[in-house]
Amino acid sequence: MWGMIAKITCFPGKRSQLLEILKQAAADMPGCLSYIIAESPDEDNVLWVSEAWDSQTSHDASLSLPGVREALPRARPLIVEFERIAVTDPVWGIGLSAKTAS
Amino acid sequence: MWGMIAKITCFPGKRSQLLEILKQAAADMPGCLSYIIAESPDEDNVLWVSEAWDSQTSHDASLSLPGVREALPRARPLIVEFERIAVTDPVWGIGLSAKTAS
Repeated sequence: MWGMIAKITCFPGKRSQLLEILKQAAADMPGCLSYIIAESPDEDNVLWVSEAWDSQTSHDASLSLPGVREALPRARPLIVEFERIAVTDPVWGIGLSAKTAS
Repeated sequence: MWGMIAKITCFPGKRSQLLEILKQAAADMPGCLSYIIAESPDEDNVLWVSEAWDSQTSHDASLSLPGVREALPRARPLIVEFERIAVTDPVWGIGLSAKTAS
């Protein structure tokens, strides 16, 4: 498996808009076992994203999906900073979807 | 929902042992929607834990579950540092288990 934890800081007032774009883009990604978007309760402009994939290959391939390619240029202008907090190797979990890469 | 992202640094050589203890403790926690344990590929002594719960109440209650209470004294001596990277408010996700608090 392959995982990433990211902290995304957006421009003031843009968090809801960014959230909607991310939800649409992430709704159907082959090989994605978990993709959780969370708001920071302390920082109004921050989203946390935690991802788990069956492989790094699936993650990398997702960047070429039509829905993701379409979302990126809409998301980018809303984002101040994208911090990759950690790249991880998930080894066990509750809530890892059984959907596998096609 | 309520979430937490934590970085756990353990003593050298103890990561596998800590992983097993966490797996056992986390296997059956009411209200836990996602609990993913990941190894750091870069830091041999680091585990990342990403959690999502139906409520903070469920999370807090989990600390009183017999399996968790039994695990804590076994886990604690293996841990150098427990860093709470973020407390979050998960708002959407793939892989959020449907299991609810009893």
